Amino acid sequence: MPFASLQLDDQGNLRHFLTIEGLGRDLLTRILDTAESFAGVTDRSVKKVPLLRGRVIANLFFETSTRTRTTFELAAKRLSADVLNLNISTSATAKGETLLDTLRNLEAMHVDMFVVRHADSGAAHFIAAHADPGVSVVNAGDGGHAHPTQAMLDVFTIRRAKGELTPLKVAIVGDILHSRVARSQIAALNTLGVSEVRVVAPRTLLPKDARSLGVHVFSDLEAGIRDVDVVIMLRLQRERMRGALLPSEHEYFQLYGLTDERLEAAKPDAIVMHPGPINRGVEMDSLVADGPRSVILQQVSHGIAIRMAVMSMAMQASGGENP
Amino acid sequence: MPFASLQLDDQGNLRHFLTIEGLGRDLLTRILDTAESFAGVTDRSVKKVPLLRGRVIANLFFETSTRTRTTFELAAKRLSADVLNLNISTSATAKGETLLDTLRNLEAMHVDMFVVRHADSGAAHFIAAHADPGVSVVNAGDGGHAHPTQAMLDVFTIRRAKGELTPLKVAIVGDILHSRVARSQIAALNTLGVSEVRVVAPRTLLPKDARSLGVHVFSDLEAGIRDVDVVIMLRLQRERMRGALLPSEHEYFQLYGLTDERLEAAKPDAIVMHPGPINRGVEMDSLVADGPRSVILQQVSHGIAIRMAVMSMAMQASGGENP
Amino acid sequence: MPFASLQLDDQGNLRHFLTIEGLGRDLLTRILDTAESFAGVTDRSVKKVPLLRGRVIANLFFETSTRTRTTFELAAKRLSADVLNLNISTSATAKGETLLDTLRNLEAMHVDMFVVRHADSGAAHFIAAHADPGVSVVNAGDGGHAHPTQAMLDVFTIRRAKGELTPLKVAIVGDILHSRVARSQIAALNTLGVSEVRVVAPRTLLPKDARSLGVHVFSDLEAGIRDVDVVIMLRLQRERMRGALLPSEHEYFQLYGLTDERLEAAKPDAIVMHPGPINRGVEMDSLVADGPRSVILQQVSHGIAIRMAVMSMAMQASGGENP
Repeated sequence: MPFASLQLDDQGNLRHFLTIEGLGRDLLTRILDTAESFAGVTDRSVKKVPLLRGRVIANLFFETSTRTRTTFELAAKRLSADVLNLNISTSATAKGETLLDTLRNLEAMHVDMFVVRHADSGAAHFIAAHADPGVSVVNAGDGGHAHPTQAMLDVFTIRRAKGELTPLKVAIVGDILHSRVARSQIAALNTLGVSEVRVVAPRTLLPKDARSLGVHVFSDLEAGIRDVDVVIMLRLQRERMRGALLPSEHEYFQLYGLTDERLEAAKPDAIVMHPGPINRGVEMDSLVADGPRSVILQQVSHGIAIRMAVMSMAMQASGGENP
Repeated sequence: MPFASLQLDDQGNLRHFLTIEGLGRDLLTRILDTAESFAGVTDRSVKKVPLLRGRVIANLFFETSTRTRTTFELAAKRLSADVLNLNISTSATAKGETLLDTLRNLEAMHVDMFVVRHADSGAAHFIAAHADPGVSVVNAGDGGHAHPTQAMLDVFTIRRAKGELTPLKVAIVGDILHSRVARSQIAALNTLGVSEVRVVAPRTLLPKDARSLGVHVFSDLEAGIRDVDVVIMLRLQRERMRGALLPSEHEYFQLYGLTDERLEAAKPDAIVMHPGPINRGVEMDSLVADGPRSVILQQVSHGIAIRMAVMSMAMQASGGENP
Repeated sequence: MPFASLQLDDQGNLRHFLTIEGLGRDLLTRILDTAESFAGVTDRSVKKVPLLRGRVIANLFFETSTRTRTTFELAAKRLSADVLNLNISTSATAKGETLLDTLRNLEAMHVDMFVVRHADSGAAHFIAAHADPGVSVVNAGDGGHAHPTQAMLDVFTIRRAKGELTPLKVAIVGDILHSRVARSQIAALNTLGVSEVRVVAPRTLLPKDARSLGVHVFSDLEAGIRDVDVVIMLRLQRERMRGALLPSEHEYFQLYGLTDERLEAAKPDAIVMHPGPINRGVEMDSLVADGPRSVILQQVSHGIAIRMAVMSMAMQASGGENP
């Protein structure tokens, strides 16, 4: 089944959130607008809305990620859902149970939503394709494939900082080849009609089909960020260093590390983003990370509003009678 | 103190739920009827009842079991209780504290109920025998001794599928010798007046006193399930293989694995059960596990209703003023 | 910034709770009085008050402690707050993120309070000094420095048992040198005007500046506890044994182990305390630990009331509009 039709119900509402590809501009905009209505909730001292009271959301993290799991957990709790954190490696799969049996068992326990993070590309799709009609699946990162809630919180952060998306030029800098975040960001920015999306990377960290993704490709940092409105720095996976794709952290910083000086090539009001956690002195200087143009901590805050939006939208499409 | 009197208060209400032995037909029926009233709760989109609001239930799992712990946790949350998951191996006992000191400390924190799983037979009884008057203990599996909530969810599943229990013939197939599940199932089925309980196993996996448990003993699968209404397959603990009690998984399947063909010996409307997780191709064929006669996933669902019933009944007997 | 001014806001209300030092008698008394109002809550069958509904409290435990974490978690839940348990060693810091980045990220997720336990003295102060204005920090034990909620629950237990604090003589027995608990107890007892505070320890387990702490120093147990109203036994860290500071557990018990016989030196109505977990037969005889003068389990219960008091007071000072 193609991803798009798997993600939407008959009325075109979000049923699973697996990847940006195949979702239209209207739907992405609806996610952003719904998140906007929740962004206020997290500022109030009583942070809960009763939208998903009595629903059960299971965090199925086959790959550990405290930050992502925590924001999903907080988002679920602010919607008044009950949260189950399942450490899969130590659970039934260790007893030889298949992934599908684990899924069926959790469905039998009336779990309403699965938030899935897995080292294999396609794991969340596999679960969604086999899930009961009443169950929703949200992809919290699958292998090198997609990380759609991260892309949406990034776009949300850009829209909040800049107002309109269509006139913007956005540069994504770093290891494009291995980044599910970059893949999802490019799809979201293009679907939402951003004027120009650029990627900036050494050739060894570029996918072969980079241009076919609808981006302009640069290998020089200053050329790549010239006159852009938004600079998104990717996290450097240090494991790649050992793979000889990169000479050294020091050399990487020399070529692609963002400093205040280099940032002058961008527009004067350009913002700087990073999905975290930052390797200070590798992807960027601390002066940039903590400086006035950085919106990195806003990204973290917005992660909760975006996840509340996606969870509540998907749960309504999958048959809940909540308004 | 004999188990029965430990489990009941002066009025004959359930105070602890440790084992089926010593509990009467009326009480077991009351558990099933109470679970029936909760089975509807898990189908509603808002799954909570406020029965145990403000109460604290501690999961004391000395033996890990994601499935059992998760259904107890969901049952407690649906009763609106607060749940503490305590990983005992990494806790105070590692500092040399005795089990009794751990118990006393949790009681001092006003924990109202302990759900105990332990590799030693009698662990839950020990805790119940030493617990404060206001505290209830539920046995979630102790060594080779008992797993009473599993037995009750199995009986509940049979009653829901078949209506009346008394006319039924039930066969339990597999490693009877090491199974706390089988021991509790036999006691529950006999107490509830099932017409005939059979066990089917190779001689090496039968307890010596099998007949004294009130069962008919078979070593041939097809003879053992002939004309039964219910076939309960036990999980094969693979560790037993190495113990030379069994030749090989392959040979076990040849002799005791359930297939559609063999199932023809049972009644045409016979149901197939398994406590999970299934070893597909060992205890049964996938065609049977996923087939129309399998009620294996209903067992999982009913586990929540049964645990809600036991928890709420025990908590009321132990002095709570909730209705 | 000096600790005292870091802990209090402009109106002298508690903003962070990091150490007893620098806090006045009025404030400590206010904590005890607030805890008194919560001590009733834990006896009721519905144990919740809505004071911190919608607030998020993160347990940041860099050092594991099931007992302390559990009482903080129960205290937070009884105040109706949401609780995040973060296992820090397996989280972002493993990816090379600094402690400050972890803090900033959690603040960006709108966490309202951090409960911090860390092996390094000063860790909670560091976090408090860098925290956002709206965020409170509670020290749940930092290295050899302080454990202020433990000291307050001890004083609370003494006040409940004895009524007035000022006429009392209190002896603290054991490894004073390495004990953050003793350090905080001494400060609390002296600030609250207790008549006499004594420490009883072998010379190798006494800090060099013991007398400057405002205590009377004894090396003989019976002389040290003569005519006291309260005997506080410290936990012996068995690691110290290997460090040759102590000959053996057996010899320690001979010299400093509390028995019923030795306890006769104290006042007839003297109470015996221990922060737990007890090494039975090392710090004290089981007859004493479980005897009529022991208030050790009351200490555990009172830990919840004290933590509810500190959390709710700090949260109100840090800008919440709750009453």
